[in-house]
Amino acid sequence: MSKINLGNFFEDFKIGQKIIHPLPRTITDGDVSFYIALTGSRFALHSSDVLAQKMGYKKKPLDDLLMFHLTFGKSVQDISLNAIANLGYAEVSFPNPVFVGDTVRLETEIIGLKENSNGKSGVVYVHSIGYNQDEQEVLNLKRWVMVHKKNKNEMSNIKDIPTFEKTLAVEKSINIPKQKEIDTLATGGKFFFEDYEVGERLNHPEGITIDDSDHTLATKLYQNNAKVHFDDFMMKSTPMGQRLMYGGHVISIARAISFNGLQNAQWIYSINSGAHANPTYAKDTIYAYTEILEKINHERDDIGLLRLRTVAVKNQKSEEISNPKDEDGKYLKNVVLDLDYTVIIPKNKKK
Amino acid sequence: MSKINLGNFFEDFKIGQKIIHPLPRTITDGDVSFYIALTGSRFALHSSDVLAQKMGYKKKPLDDLLMFHLTFGKSVQDISLNAIANLGYAEVSFPNPVFVGDTVRLETEIIGLKENSNGKSGVVYVHSIGYNQDEQEVLNLKRWVMVHKKNKNEMSNIKDIPTFEKTLAVEKSINIPKQKEIDTLATGGKFFFEDYEVGERLNHPEGITIDDSDHTLATKLYQNNAKVHFDDFMMKSTPMGQRLMYGGHVISIARAISFNGLQNAQWIYSINSGAHANPTYAKDTIYAYTEILEKINHERDDIGLLRLRTVAVKNQKSEEISNPKDEDGKYLKNVVLDLDYTVIIPKNKKK
Amino acid sequence: MSKINLGNFFEDFKIGQKIIHPLPRTITDGDVSFYIALTGSRFALHSSDVLAQKMGYKKKPLDDLLMFHLTFGKSVQDISLNAIANLGYAEVSFPNPVFVGDTVRLETEIIGLKENSNGKSGVVYVHSIGYNQDEQEVLNLKRWVMVHKKNKNEMSNIKDIPTFEKTLAVEKSINIPKQKEIDTLATGGKFFFEDYEVGERLNHPEGITIDDSDHTLATKLYQNNAKVHFDDFMMKSTPMGQRLMYGGHVISIARAISFNGLQNAQWIYSINSGAHANPTYAKDTIYAYTEILEKINHERDDIGLLRLRTVAVKNQKSEEISNPKDEDGKYLKNVVLDLDYTVIIPKNKKK
Repeated sequence: MSKINLGNFFEDFKIGQKIIHPLPRTITDGDVSFYIALTGSRFALHSSDVLAQKMGYKKKPLDDLLMFHLTFGKSVQDISLNAIANLGYAEVSFPNPVFVGDTVRLETEIIGLKENSNGKSGVVYVHSIGYNQDEQEVLNLKRWVMVHKKNKNEMSNIKDIPTFEKTLAVEKSINIPKQKEIDTLATGGKFFFEDYEVGERLNHPEGITIDDSDHTLATKLYQNNAKVHFDDFMMKSTPMGQRLMYGGHVISIARAISFNGLQNAQWIYSINSGAHANPTYAKDTIYAYTEILEKINHERDDIGLLRLRTVAVKNQKSEEISNPKDEDGKYLKNVVLDLDYTVIIPKNKKK
Repeated sequence: MSKINLGNFFEDFKIGQKIIHPLPRTITDGDVSFYIALTGSRFALHSSDVLAQKMGYKKKPLDDLLMFHLTFGKSVQDISLNAIANLGYAEVSFPNPVFVGDTVRLETEIIGLKENSNGKSGVVYVHSIGYNQDEQEVLNLKRWVMVHKKNKNEMSNIKDIPTFEKTLAVEKSINIPKQKEIDTLATGGKFFFEDYEVGERLNHPEGITIDDSDHTLATKLYQNNAKVHFDDFMMKSTPMGQRLMYGGHVISIARAISFNGLQNAQWIYSINSGAHANPTYAKDTIYAYTEILEKINHERDDIGLLRLRTVAVKNQKSEEISNPKDEDGKYLKNVVLDLDYTVIIPKNKKK
Repeated sequence: MSKINLGNFFEDFKIGQKIIHPLPRTITDGDVSFYIALTGSRFALHSSDVLAQKMGYKKKPLDDLLMFHLTFGKSVQDISLNAIANLGYAEVSFPNPVFVGDTVRLETEIIGLKENSNGKSGVVYVHSIGYNQDEQEVLNLKRWVMVHKKNKNEMSNIKDIPTFEKTLAVEKSINIPKQKEIDTLATGGKFFFEDYEVGERLNHPEGITIDDSDHTLATKLYQNNAKVHFDDFMMKSTPMGQRLMYGGHVISIARAISFNGLQNAQWIYSINSGAHANPTYAKDTIYAYTEILEKINHERDDIGLLRLRTVAVKNQKSEEISNPKDEDGKYLKNVVLDLDYTVIIPKNKKK
């Protein structure tokens, strides 16, 4: 038996199989500084202990996406080392806050398999749960990836596809502290749940150019070892011709850009679905706009939820895009991300 | 009302107006590691808790410039998002030390306005004060920036220009611990206040090349969101043709380079004036020299002050520059920084 | 006397001379995050406090190589600022673990000198010891560097060359906690001391491309101020034509790549010898393979040692290299590192 882990192929997965991913990670202030430096994120709850304490936390909780990357990165070596493409996400939630000092780990169950008719690959559907050191759930997600087959023409004809909720149901109980009046001079935003309207569109003005060191530092920090992100020599002989940016980094950049207009929406409740519409490479400049898809009242009177669609575009101002897809339903070539997600935002206590 | 903050224009400012900048920031060890990695700074007081304790601190205090960037960065979104140029600094002081764990924030008062005769822009003069979580002043600065007007040809003819001290007066009481004999084997420098002479010039031998990821990581870490630093796509259509480096990063690089010759000058007392003489871009290599402008005795017998002029030059050895300005008083094209500042340096207790 | 440290030249060194290097460094979580982001290292003991505690530590100890770089970096300004080449290492050991919060420093004794017959340079042999704040040894190493002479044609004919052990002797007592059953679901590897065979070769599949910002951030983080790594303007006028990567960064990248196949070998016992066979530059992609040279039983029944040879190759898959040297004993042009070192690996307690 070889000592080298070459990753799993389509045939290696069985429905119901459970995988405990190695490499538990203790999260530190160093990781948090990296996240700010790599994305320019300005959501204040994640930058200031003083503000976090005013908002009911013992100290600043981690940005949900930083926790996502550090936890999710562990699954790459078992699930997607031989992935052709990360096809989608669904039902992603963030049940408990994570703090510096916490140690996170990930477990995965295989929930679906579909062999492709070309005989060369198949789609693997997984359900992953991230835990902290106290066995509390901190991440819950489903995703599906296209993976190479080992034996290209031996057909199993397996086709067992799970169904996913289009949007994650909103729980009765949401695990964030009771919000009193928000210090808008600290958060930088004066808009609350009441101020947003369904159909409203926010063209975020900032653009961020990403360089090779940025995206590779990010992905290495997350101990995500998918070769396509790091190995320029190998990528030169592929149609891409260069290293491909980790899609999660694009999500983080888009979220950071969305700060301008959504300053008080400091918590992600769920990611309902996400598509990496086109690849992103070093030197691309990312812009984004957000549409308010839905306003969701909660039984708590201090918060509400906004279902959002954030579209990220490369090397083109986002306001030039009215619809990210063309008449045939195909993504425009500059669109790199189409993200349907739900955020938590306080209600206006002054009123 | 739009939910997008497009920044303030010249007409939006009024003399006497006070702005509380959002985004208080808790400073961490991650930020300190970034500062060392981004600048190569070697001032020992800021790297070693053991040395800092010998020098009378509870633990290593932050490098003054790192605190400056993390605090100052907050003002960009309110003051200089629509800035054409950062014209100058004056009366910058560092009244109290800052430590990892402290949370800093910034407030600004508008102290002067001058409309430009071209009708397109004006100069805004501001006085900003940074505070820690205990409301102690940690930064006090004045600066002036040229800002776009909203309505190009409506003239207000406002011209109310404050006066600035050419150098900041030295206080009777300086807030650093009483210095005993300095461990020169730890600080790396054997020269003290007594050893420097007015007119002396130090040609610092090191040069540091800055890449795109370096300066954009720095500026994002400081949550400074001025678009000119990040958005390469936008900058390609400007005369600059590329992202402009944050001037503060150039100050930090010059200060780090000045270590070789000024190892014991570990505290900045004030920045008296500063000019970003020419723009700096990725791939430029920065060199620097320092002149001793003035020696200032203090009533404390353990320390003295040196007023310095550090000139940073790009892509040319600093010893080749005898005067950074030509006969017409214009900066030479390779000069990127002309900084007049005062440092605190211990006296030699062995004598 | 000039206040500028221009480094020592060959004539400045005397056998028996002792140098206390300045700049003690308190190691932080920021440094650890940087190391992971810069190298992609995945050895679990250094990432998880929970796992480290299961393995008998109070918290995660530092990766041996990160401690090496942070401690060793201090010697550059005194030993190798005028170095032409770092010729070799021997007898490098890691006597005690280092943790975040520890402060490390370095002392060096000159143990040999050999003038080159060309009259222009000489070889300086040094023995350096790193200490933590409690005066415990954390690093012990010998190395030799070729250094410029000040006076090119004045010959001293000095030739006093120390002898080095080919491999460091294994101590009776090894300072790591007693290892119980290893949690292979956390470390990511199921192979133990018993599973490896002398002569076995592991072709590590990952490749990592290094960019300018990566290697200069690393070297600046270590406060290693050798100009060849930072000053692109100066290097453009040398035969190299660009900045040279710090050899230590290549060692760290090779070690990080070797994780895949050596997951449980989480401690370096010694570096027996190391050659930087060819220079590495930005944009090079590093691959590596490892041969098991020797299996060393220890009187402790929980651990054994593996003497390894890891060869790093640039821009060529490591499996294409059967011997890193050609018939004349000269390194192939793509080989960048030939490292002989000994690691500690647990025995299989399940058997």
